[in-house]
Amino acid sequence: MKAIIAHAARDIRLEDVPEEDPGPGEVKLRLAAGGICGSDLHYYNHGGFGTVRLKQPMILGHEVSAIVENLGAGVSGLEIGQLVAVSPSRPCRECRYCQEGLYNQCLNMRFYGSAMPFPHIQGAFRQSLVADAIQCIAADGLSVGEAAMAEPLAVTLHATRRAGSLLGKRVLVTGCGPIGILSILCARRAGAAEIVAVDLSAFTLSLAKAVGADRVINSTEEPDALAAYSADKGTFDVIYECSGAATALAGGIGALRPRGIIIQLGLGGDMNLPMMAITAKELELRGSFRFHEEFAIGVDLMRKGLIDVKPLITHTMGLDRMVSAFETASDRTRSMKVQIAFS
Amino acid sequence: MKAIIAHAARDIRLEDVPEEDPGPGEVKLRLAAGGICGSDLHYYNHGGFGTVRLKQPMILGHEVSAIVENLGAGVSGLEIGQLVAVSPSRPCRECRYCQEGLYNQCLNMRFYGSAMPFPHIQGAFRQSLVADAIQCIAADGLSVGEAAMAEPLAVTLHATRRAGSLLGKRVLVTGCGPIGILSILCARRAGAAEIVAVDLSAFTLSLAKAVGADRVINSTEEPDALAAYSADKGTFDVIYECSGAATALAGGIGALRPRGIIIQLGLGGDMNLPMMAITAKELELRGSFRFHEEFAIGVDLMRKGLIDVKPLITHTMGLDRMVSAFETASDRTRSMKVQIAFS
Amino acid sequence: MKAIIAHAARDIRLEDVPEEDPGPGEVKLRLAAGGICGSDLHYYNHGGFGTVRLKQPMILGHEVSAIVENLGAGVSGLEIGQLVAVSPSRPCRECRYCQEGLYNQCLNMRFYGSAMPFPHIQGAFRQSLVADAIQCIAADGLSVGEAAMAEPLAVTLHATRRAGSLLGKRVLVTGCGPIGILSILCARRAGAAEIVAVDLSAFTLSLAKAVGADRVINSTEEPDALAAYSADKGTFDVIYECSGAATALAGGIGALRPRGIIIQLGLGGDMNLPMMAITAKELELRGSFRFHEEFAIGVDLMRKGLIDVKPLITHTMGLDRMVSAFETASDRTRSMKVQIAFS
Amino acid sequence: MKAIIAHAARDIRLEDVPEEDPGPGEVKLRLAAGGICGSDLHYYNHGGFGTVRLKQPMILGHEVSAIVENLGAGVSGLEIGQLVAVSPSRPCRECRYCQEGLYNQCLNMRFYGSAMPFPHIQGAFRQSLVADAIQCIAADGLSVGEAAMAEPLAVTLHATRRAGSLLGKRVLVTGCGPIGILSILCARRAGAAEIVAVDLSAFTLSLAKAVGADRVINSTEEPDALAAYSADKGTFDVIYECSGAATALAGGIGALRPRGIIIQLGLGGDMNLPMMAITAKELELRGSFRFHEEFAIGVDLMRKGLIDVKPLITHTMGLDRMVSAFETASDRTRSMKVQIAFS
Repeated sequence: MKAIIAHAARDIRLEDVPEEDPGPGEVKLRLAAGGICGSDLHYYNHGGFGTVRLKQPMILGHEVSAIVENLGAGVSGLEIGQLVAVSPSRPCRECRYCQEGLYNQCLNMRFYGSAMPFPHIQGAFRQSLVADAIQCIAADGLSVGEAAMAEPLAVTLHATRRAGSLLGKRVLVTGCGPIGILSILCARRAGAAEIVAVDLSAFTLSLAKAVGADRVINSTEEPDALAAYSADKGTFDVIYECSGAATALAGGIGALRPRGIIIQLGLGGDMNLPMMAITAKELELRGSFRFHEEFAIGVDLMRKGLIDVKPLITHTMGLDRMVSAFETASDRTRSMKVQIAFS
Repeated sequence: MKAIIAHAARDIRLEDVPEEDPGPGEVKLRLAAGGICGSDLHYYNHGGFGTVRLKQPMILGHEVSAIVENLGAGVSGLEIGQLVAVSPSRPCRECRYCQEGLYNQCLNMRFYGSAMPFPHIQGAFRQSLVADAIQCIAADGLSVGEAAMAEPLAVTLHATRRAGSLLGKRVLVTGCGPIGILSILCARRAGAAEIVAVDLSAFTLSLAKAVGADRVINSTEEPDALAAYSADKGTFDVIYECSGAATALAGGIGALRPRGIIIQLGLGGDMNLPMMAITAKELELRGSFRFHEEFAIGVDLMRKGLIDVKPLITHTMGLDRMVSAFETASDRTRSMKVQIAFS
Repeated sequence: MKAIIAHAARDIRLEDVPEEDPGPGEVKLRLAAGGICGSDLHYYNHGGFGTVRLKQPMILGHEVSAIVENLGAGVSGLEIGQLVAVSPSRPCRECRYCQEGLYNQCLNMRFYGSAMPFPHIQGAFRQSLVADAIQCIAADGLSVGEAAMAEPLAVTLHATRRAGSLLGKRVLVTGCGPIGILSILCARRAGAAEIVAVDLSAFTLSLAKAVGADRVINSTEEPDALAAYSADKGTFDVIYECSGAATALAGGIGALRPRGIIIQLGLGGDMNLPMMAITAKELELRGSFRFHEEFAIGVDLMRKGLIDVKPLITHTMGLDRMVSAFETASDRTRSMKVQIAFS
Repeated sequence: MKAIIAHAARDIRLEDVPEEDPGPGEVKLRLAAGGICGSDLHYYNHGGFGTVRLKQPMILGHEVSAIVENLGAGVSGLEIGQLVAVSPSRPCRECRYCQEGLYNQCLNMRFYGSAMPFPHIQGAFRQSLVADAIQCIAADGLSVGEAAMAEPLAVTLHATRRAGSLLGKRVLVTGCGPIGILSILCARRAGAAEIVAVDLSAFTLSLAKAVGADRVINSTEEPDALAAYSADKGTFDVIYECSGAATALAGGIGALRPRGIIIQLGLGGDMNLPMMAITAKELELRGSFRFHEEFAIGVDLMRKGLIDVKPLITHTMGLDRMVSAFETASDRTRSMKVQIAFS
């Protein structure tokens, strides 16, 4: 079978790797769709990010759906031919954080397509995959593309749960890539009264509006628009910070009301923050990273028609056009989520 | 002006009371609509409930909307002619609970139409009313009937906030009077994945279905239906207990999963509870009573079209038909919320 | 080796059972001390409780300390000859609740000495025990008796965490058996400003006073003492309900202030509760059952001298006097915690 | 009567101001002791801080105790001659944040000795003071110096409540001025299992040790000491950041475990923060500012002997030596809390 393997910056190759057989508790899968994530693009464009660098060839990909092909011994609850969303998260269940139920903070996490430990954790962009049954969530009724959105949706559901109840709250989303757009969908579903979205790109803002933002602000064109929300110590109850940019966050902090919550999703470098405002308004800045039980919850919400991720999937391209897919995904002015069709 | 005054069980009269002028910080209002609440019906049908009894004539009513007629000195933010929802909650802002922000637990609460202290707190079913400006929430764009629903909506928003985030959760509603139906609306808006409603009346269950319950159970016809939800220690994450009936709650407890939350809204007498299940499954039973800042939040959600209370208003009747209105409201097989039109 | 095996009510025997060898990840232990718990007494005196009944011979005991005798393959962090506290809690780490980090709610829990499933889960009152290394917490510096208190201490630490911050709070403890006394110790350590304890027995109340209760109330002698705490809607912020008796809880509810929290630890039958007070004061009744990470935390607090459980250990008796030990433990007027010395 | 009035940087004067009489609900007080706070020192040494500058003469001081001299109409619960701790916090009880119970975020706060609004809010360093009765908490049994510590103690109690339960937790305190030292006292009282304190000054660290820190680190002498706490993603559950220095916080973040909480108390300028660690470890940074109901709670804890602030009061100086008092308080190498004796 073929797999998409990153060797270095701008060097990804479609290569043969051997198929595996499922052991006890495992499932053999035939890949359906795979979404290209920001971290995949970092490996593709730059060979990594920060101190995380490719040091050996690594199969990319962690947003995938698949068809069950074969069941290992002892597996129940899944059927051959069934569409599943595959969680890329594989905590050890033994370390101190797993023992406390903080699975996403596992010390021995084997998350698909991560160059963080060495040897790297190989990813899921391959035609055939053997996974633990526990990673596979039945996705009957969804398209293969929707099922492959379960992973980024889980990221924003986890973030939303970290924000507490949003019912009747005012929400600001800074940065409208796929995570920002999914945050809008989650905040809307969770009962936010008002959602304002900020970005630099007209394309992404038009999608933000389409999926439910009440107002969108192009910070290039309206650099002072947020200032109007700072009266009486601020307006918004919650910020989803999805840009990783300090200026976006600083602008949001001015518009955040006392005891307001910032959910930090955007990954960037160090940020210079207005600590006086954070302290005096008693703001709460909460990091949000990956997910755990939210993966299954997201599939459930999509299957019930309560969250519709289809508008995000702007491109679906065959495995033979994978380089073009990565190029398209790298262009934020015309693509949102680009998925590869594996079959 | 005329007011609806309860003298004893089944003795309510339309009587003349003097009009007042607004003092500083106050507003003079002309009543628009007034919804009949369960407590009004208790006074009407039984002269009270439990140890709360009518001991002197009392004006009924606490779910009202009104038109601003005149502004007292120093009032800003309201305009003559404007429709407002009027909060019946008037905490003292000085007692120990007010000092802690628990305004709904105020030791000196003067809640409209309450026979709890003596002299009683007179209610709002009168053609003209002087209120504190702080009680009046602008309701532009709403119908007078919708604005008068702000009070029971606030009750269920308060309950929903006490339940924490509902996003992706499974919710059971026991008892589908107006509070149960509004709970369904709130849970749906807050992102519940599945809502099951239980009641004894086909009429209320049809409304529960219409406003968003995924399944309705007539416990007379399907007494064992909840048992199917008890596998693996239970299914539901949250119960809104709106019936005040121990059997309804006990049934729900069996179907509630570990760490599940019961929000107790229904007012009844003592209840015999299965404490072994509560302890071993680590359930949380939380009383919920009245509201505070949720009153304004509810008006905001209605004005934004995010919660639609119109389906609940089954009857609107003129002041001249007030006895008929109370009779209709007392018949749960054919009415949900009955409102009196004051003008 | 010998084990204490319950065959039926009032029929426990010291019998030979085969020793085992530790497999990978396991540890062979020589028992040191074993505390007799209320559930052990139920098996001894009544052959069970509620629907939980002895249906086959079962080794009793789940509060034990031990000396490490041998390490299975791959075990690190423990040394031969070391004293350890042994957690009786063995969740499956695979079921839906383990997946959510709610290990104490595991669907397949194998808790030592439980007749709940069939075949029963055999207990730890035996001279030699093979346990998972993860169950063993190093207890250097503690006495064997203190180490064997880790289990009931974990129960009350779990309860205390479920109560939230206690700093400066007023606490009521109803029922002063070992769990009540440990609750007093935990509440004192967590910064409670005032602790009042209620029981029927002069012996237990004297111990309550000795470990830190500010006031003790003998409810036989002072049946109305709690009423003095009901002014202004109540005084206490938190109740640890350790009696399982409805009258104790009902009395506490009257003395609990609005938004007060009841932690239900006592196991009893159904309870008739004053729901009007629970609803109107917005109380929170939270079940608390067993523990998970609190087991290691408790050992840590004892080793640091921050919690001293020694006053609870009123009797230590040899294995040859086991029947006498169970009899002594059954007499609440003269014993608190009775431990069996296994070596 | 005399008052301590700041005119400009390094220009404070003892000047005559007229006495007042208490109106309804007010109390006339004779000042007892007044502690010099960091903000007083900023006015004294620099004429302000950040954008907060002296623009007119202002009476300093907000940490005071006093003797009740006279009661205004309608005041109950206080007696002439009684020692009271006087809260400097005077929220309006009407604005949107007061309406939500967030009194310390009041839009119209009149906090003693603040140059933030103009005209400035005059302070409490004066021989005679008229205050609202609600500001006065009976301090019977405390020394006048202890009673004057109620304000900074309230600051750290508020911070501690924002950290949630500390029972069994590991705590790091960065910066050991009075707020840092009081944080150690609070964390110890709240059941922390281990407390490590970091500062640059040997004097303050010796006091940190004396009041209960398990380990103190002089970051000048041991710049890498915190690195030892970073294994397995970190050790501490909670940081009280009391230094306002970005390097202190950054060092602490490396030693903070996943889901760890930073309570930001230190006031400084902007800070450059390692956002990747905050996001990936899902840390929570929570500002903490002033207090509300914690003022009375602190007095209660001191009166019960549960928190002992006496070790912090290193100097007490007469009103005639006020300049010397401000100079002494400005020297962190030899003073902790300097108080002025007003009588």
